[in-house]
Parts: sequence; C-alpha cells; structure tokens
Amino acid sequence: MSPLAVALPVLPAIAGVRLGAAEAGIRYEGRVDLVMVELAPGTTVAGVFTRNRCPGAPVDWCRAALAGGSARALVVNAGNANVFTGAAGREATQATAAAAAALVGCAPDEIFLASTGVIGQVLPHARITAALPALHASLAADRWQEAASGIMTTDTFPKGATRTANLGCVTVRITGIAKGSGMIAPDMATMLCFVFTDATLPAAALQTMLAQGTAESFNRTTVDSDTSTSDTVLLFATGTAGNRPDADTADFAAALNAVLLDLALQVVRDGEGAQKFIRIDVAGAVDDESARRVALSVANSPLVKTAVAGEDANWGRIVMAVGKAGEPADRDTLSVAVGGVWMARNGSVVPGYNEAPVVAHMQGRDIHIEIDLGLGLGKNTAWTCDLTHGYIDINGSYRS
Amino acid sequence: MSPLAVALPVLPAIAGVRLGAAEAGIRYEGRVDLVMVELAPGTTVAGVFTRNRCPGAPVDWCRAALAGGSARALVVNAGNANVFTGAAGREATQATAAAAAALVGCAPDEIFLASTGVIGQVLPHARITAALPALHASLAADRWQEAASGIMTTDTFPKGATRTANLGCVTVRITGIAKGSGMIAPDMATMLCFVFTDATLPAAALQTMLAQGTAESFNRTTVDSDTSTSDTVLLFATGTAGNRPDADTADFAAALNAVLLDLALQVVRDGEGAQKFIRIDVAGAVDDESARRVALSVANSPLVKTAVAGEDANWGRIVMAVGKAGEPADRDTLSVAVGGVWMARNGSVVPGYNEAPVVAHMQGRDIHIEIDLGLGLGKNTAWTCDLTHGYIDINGSYRS
Repeated sequence: MSPLAVALPVLPAIAGVRLGAAEAGIRYEGRVDLVMVELAPGTTVAGVFTRNRCPGAPVDWCRAALAGGSARALVVNAGNANVFTGAAGREATQATAAAAAALVGCAPDEIFLASTGVIGQVLPHARITAALPALHASLAADRWQEAASGIMTTDTFPKGATRTANLGCVTVRITGIAKGSGMIAPDMATMLCFVFTDATLPAAALQTMLAQGTAESFNRTTVDSDTSTSDTVLLFATGTAGNRPDADTADFAAALNAVLLDLALQVVRDGEGAQKFIRIDVAGAVDDESARRVALSVANSPLVKTAVAGEDANWGRIVMAVGKAGEPADRDTLSVAVGGVWMARNGSVVPGYNEAPVVAHMQGRDIHIEIDLGLGLGKNTAWTCDLTHGYIDINGSYRS
Repeated sequence: MSPLAVALPVLPAIAGVRLGAAEAGIRYEGRVDLVMVELAPGTTVAGVFTRNRCPGAPVDWCRAALAGGSARALVVNAGNANVFTGAAGREATQATAAAAAALVGCAPDEIFLASTGVIGQVLPHARITAALPALHASLAADRWQEAASGIMTTDTFPKGATRTANLGCVTVRITGIAKGSGMIAPDMATMLCFVFTDATLPAAALQTMLAQGTAESFNRTTVDSDTSTSDTVLLFATGTAGNRPDADTADFAAALNAVLLDLALQVVRDGEGAQKFIRIDVAGAVDDESARRVALSVANSPLVKTAVAGEDANWGRIVMAVGKAGEPADRDTLSVAVGGVWMARNGSVVPGYNEAPVVAHMQGRDIHIEIDLGLGLGKNTAWTCDLTHGYIDINGSYRS
C-alpha cells in the first residue's frame, strides 16, 4: 500500500447507474478483474483518450462508439490491455460488446469498453463473455468499492471521488472511479477513469466540459513520463436528475473538474514506488501554457525526482529542469523555493537562507516546489511523485 | 566501476598540445580536480554547447570567446559546475581566464573554460588560480590519462579516443577526452568533451564539422533525459601537421565523427548505475529525423529501461514508447525485434516465436532493439543504458 494512499470515500448511488465486479480469470486466478456498469436508457456520453499512436483495440472501439453519443453499459477488464493484438484484438472488442449488448438489450455501439494490463497478449475474451451473464444479474447501485477495486492493476488502493453541483436549481451528483499507477504521463487521460452523473446534459456539452476538465487535471500530472496506450476517460450522464438540459453548467463544470482533479491526484499518490507527493507551482512565465510545460519538465526530471526521494532540496537540479524545458526562461530572473523557503533568487543562491525548515519539509510526505521565472504573468501547477527503488522493483519484474 | 567500462586507449601526443592535471581542493581533499591544456600559437577552435536555458558561467564565457576563433589554453575543473552563481560566477570565469592568460602569454579570450560538478555553489576560484602556476609548469605532451581522469565527477572510468585521417596527403591525428555519467540527454553536447588535432583548419570549417559530428554522436545518446547546464564540446586544431588548409576534409570529418561517437558511447557505458548498454535501431520511418525521435523516445522510456534492467524483453513497452513519440507511426505496420528475433510483426505478436535466444540475449551486457515502422525509408540509431537501483542510489544522495 502506498504511504500516500487516501481512503476511498463513501460513493453514494447515482440514479440510472448499476454496477458490479467479478472474477473472470483473465490473467490470474482468484482476482476480481471484470467490471460492468449498466446505464439507464437515454444516457449520454463523452470521452477523451490517449494520444499514443499505438492505442489499444478498446480505445479504437470507444472512439467509434462515441459518434453515437449514447451509452447503455461499460465493460472493463484488468490484467490484459488488449493492445497490439491485431485482428484478434478487434474480434475481442466486438465479441465483448455483442455479449453485453444482448444482456442489456441495446445496440453494440452503446457499449463502452476499456482494458488495462499487459500489452501484446491476445485477450481471452471468451472468459469475459462467459462471466458477463452472472455479473449482469448481480449489478446493484451500491457496488462502487468493488468496481473501483476491480479495475486495479499495479494500483495499491482503489480511487474514487464524488461531488454535487447545482444545475438549473436541481442538485446533481458526479461520481468517478479511476485506476493508474505506472505508465502515467500527461498526454490525454493517462489511465482509466469513469465518471457518472445523474445530470441531463447533451453529449456535445459533456464532451466540451470533459476535455477542459481533463486538461486541468490529468494533463497536469505525471508519474514516469510514459504515455499509456490505453488511457481513457469516459463521462456518462444518465439524465435522471430532471434538470433542464439548457441550464447554466458553470457549477456543474466546477464540480466535474474537482472530481477529475481529485482522481488524478489519487493516481499520482499511487505512482509506482511513490514515497512522496510533489506539487510544483510555476509563476512568472510568459503564459499559462509555458508555465505548464516548465512545471511538467521539472515533474518529469529523474534527477529532481530522485533528489526528492533522497530528501535532498537540490534546487540546482530544479534549475536544470527549468532550463531544459525549452520554454522562455532567463537564468538571471529565476527564483526557486522549497517548502515555502526561497533558496535561489534572481540567478543565484540566497546567501544564508535558513536551511532548517527546508530539511524538515523534505522529510515529510508532501513536497512543495515553487518556481518564479520572473518574465510574465503565466502560471500553472503540476503534480508528480518521487522516483524510488520501488519503481525499479515493480518495473524490473512486471511480467513475471 | 561500470561493468560496461572500456579501457582507456593509448592516446599519442599531438604536436602543439601539452596538458596536465592537479589537485586544487575545489570540493574534496586529495582528488585531482583541475586540468590545463596549453595549445600552440595559431590554434583554431570550434564549440557546441548545451541548449539548456540556464547555462553555467563557463558556457557563457566560451560562447563569447569562440567569436575570436583562436585558442591558447583550456582550463577545466571538476567538483563545482559554476552554474546559477550570478555575478560571482562571471567573476570566477574572468579571474581564471586572466590567470591562465598571464601564464601562457595570450589574451584572456584565447582561454577556454569548463566546469562540472555541483550546481549553485560559488566556485572558489582562488584555489584554481593558486594551483595554476605549478600545474602550468608541469604540462607535458603525454599526460592524457591524468587529464581524462581529472575531469571526472560521478564517472567510473576515464574516457578517450583517437583516430588518424588523411588531410591533403598528410596524416593528421584526432584525439579526444570526455566525461559524463548523469544528467545526460541529447540536446547538444551533453557533457564535457575536448578534442584535439594537429590539422591546419580554419575555425569556420571546424565549427561546421563539429556541429555535424555532434548531431551524429552525442545527440543520439541519452542516459536519463536530463539536459545538463554545462554541456560543452570543444575542438582545437593546433595547425602543426602542415597540411594545406584547403585540403579535402571528407576523411578528416569521418575520423572526427568516429572519435566523437566513440566518446559518446563511452559516456553511455558509464551512465549512472548502468548494467546494460542498449542500441536502438529504427527503420521504416518517414524520414531520418523522425526515426531519431522515435529511437530517443524508446531510449528515454523509464519502463523500457527498467524492463531491460530486469532482463525482460517486454516489447509491449517498446510499442508504447514508439507510440508516445508523437512521430508518424501506424500500429498495424509496426514490427519489433530484440536480439535479432522479430517478436512482433505488423501490429501483433509473432505466433510461436522462439523465445530462447531472446532470453539469452537479455541476460547479456549489450542489448539490441530493432524497430521497423513500415512507413518509409527513414532510419536512425540511439544508444542508452538501463535504469537500475544504482541510478537511484547515486542520485538520491549526490550532495551528501
């Protein structure tokens, strides 16, 4: 269990959502590895996906299915990513969707699919279709914890978040679950994340808000700079809350963003081998996007991340990582703080700064790095974890 | 000592080059940390430097000095990079250059400087200028090993290479030394490298050949994706060989490239914590530059590098790293081989491929990955090392 783990919050039922999990024996015996979610008729859907050029077959399937804008079920398996599996991979998605559609009573393109696990092995989809009828019969409104656990791979804790929002004077609920631990980099949705709401909203509006929310959350986090082939965020709206579909969505969008950021930071807290959670605030950049790139350059630097693992406030490596980002930066206006103490200002070390609070800060779990580029008003934040022996242990023997 | 270390070759004298090393006590007691090279009058010079936006004061100094195109000495210290040291850093370069110029009898802008080591601490340049007179008095034509050792920081073995070339019917010699182990990424010269030749060549011709040779060598290697603030490659031509300055330089350029590539691969072999040396050949890209980017994306992937450390021929991670490069790639025409065995072809695993030779290959020191994108005629190669517990050990406690 990650020392940065947070407890799964109570995730209340959402009208129109029934879910559950089962053991399908996809890769290991005796492990829950199949999750199904049934959605009420009329559910709208939006999605964002990995930008990796070698996406898995389920990503292809979801991209095509999104065109319909309508969803009746989600089927997710862990243990096998169904990536780089050629025609067999496409066949697996078709067979799984057909089986789920028959159980739910809908068209196959209203079934959404995601797979996570090992790459390059043919997904034994007959095990999924064999397990689906009993799983479907067991679906219930309160099985969030099982679903959040059933999609885990190298994750050490289940991840969930929930918020309410005011949508045209109706209170709606937004609840999401996510998985992710390694192969985490900010280039789209960076893991699996499924968000459900009872709001009534058209698919196009959902898509706009989801894209914006993902940019503000998952795309500002990184664990190891490696972009998965399976990253998927799906947002389903069951339309059971009874709000007017043309209601002002500002509060809904804010609550959605809060759910997405909460889940994204839980993924970082479960980064493979993570011992410390790192927040990097960049200010003084030429614009916000430049600040984001600088923050992520620091967040992806192995030397910064190993220094944090060693509890060393090595601001020289932070300077290096700022400079390698390729964004406008001037060494002589650059300042760096760790734990709120400015150690370097305007191009050189602060003479006689008080190191004691910095040392104490570095020994904690939550590390805060601040960078002021001194150039403009752009600012942004990135989140990551440290790089430890645990990451090497996990990834030097993943397949065995 | 890196298990991938190679022995320093015999480096013969180059007419017009006298060198040596000394203990200046810059950071540690009892360690050789200062190197001086004196160059004959008339020596021309070329240089390439880091693209990091926060370069060290010696990089600034060399960039300015290069405008003159003439060099009489090189002074290098290890233990302190003189980076992010503000006005004190500029003062250190001026004082060091002035002291060396007085000893040699030249203008300060004929002195070239490089520093490597910790970032952000003021360089105690008085220790350098105090040590220079005795060091200068000791310079000799045969002290290559001491010089190659004197510029090391976390390096575990000294690095040198030498070749001869035919330049207008005159045989000239090219000899270089280099240091580098961590903070190694392909964005210019990626460490310190000093190359010397007795050829007679104008500075402009040297610059063209050095830029080309660096692109073909150092810019195709990576250890940890972190671009140093001090990367410097300098090429000095003493003009003592007596060739015609307008001779055809094709053979010289080829020999120079060979020296640079030899040194670059020695740096990779001394990558921090490296246990395995990895060559990545990409073919079938839309062009050579695209192939280079794909190869470096694989070379920089922590998941690929930890898989190699674990002796796991995890081609799924290779597929992921190809796809995240952002270059044109089509999953369904992509093929991957490890140790000469094609494990994945045209978008899926090769059924029943013989795993035994791959397992044996992964247990060796030299790992060969081949990727065919199946799109065009572009090809390129990158070199890196694996990511091990040793890297975490070294970088989690560098300053202590």
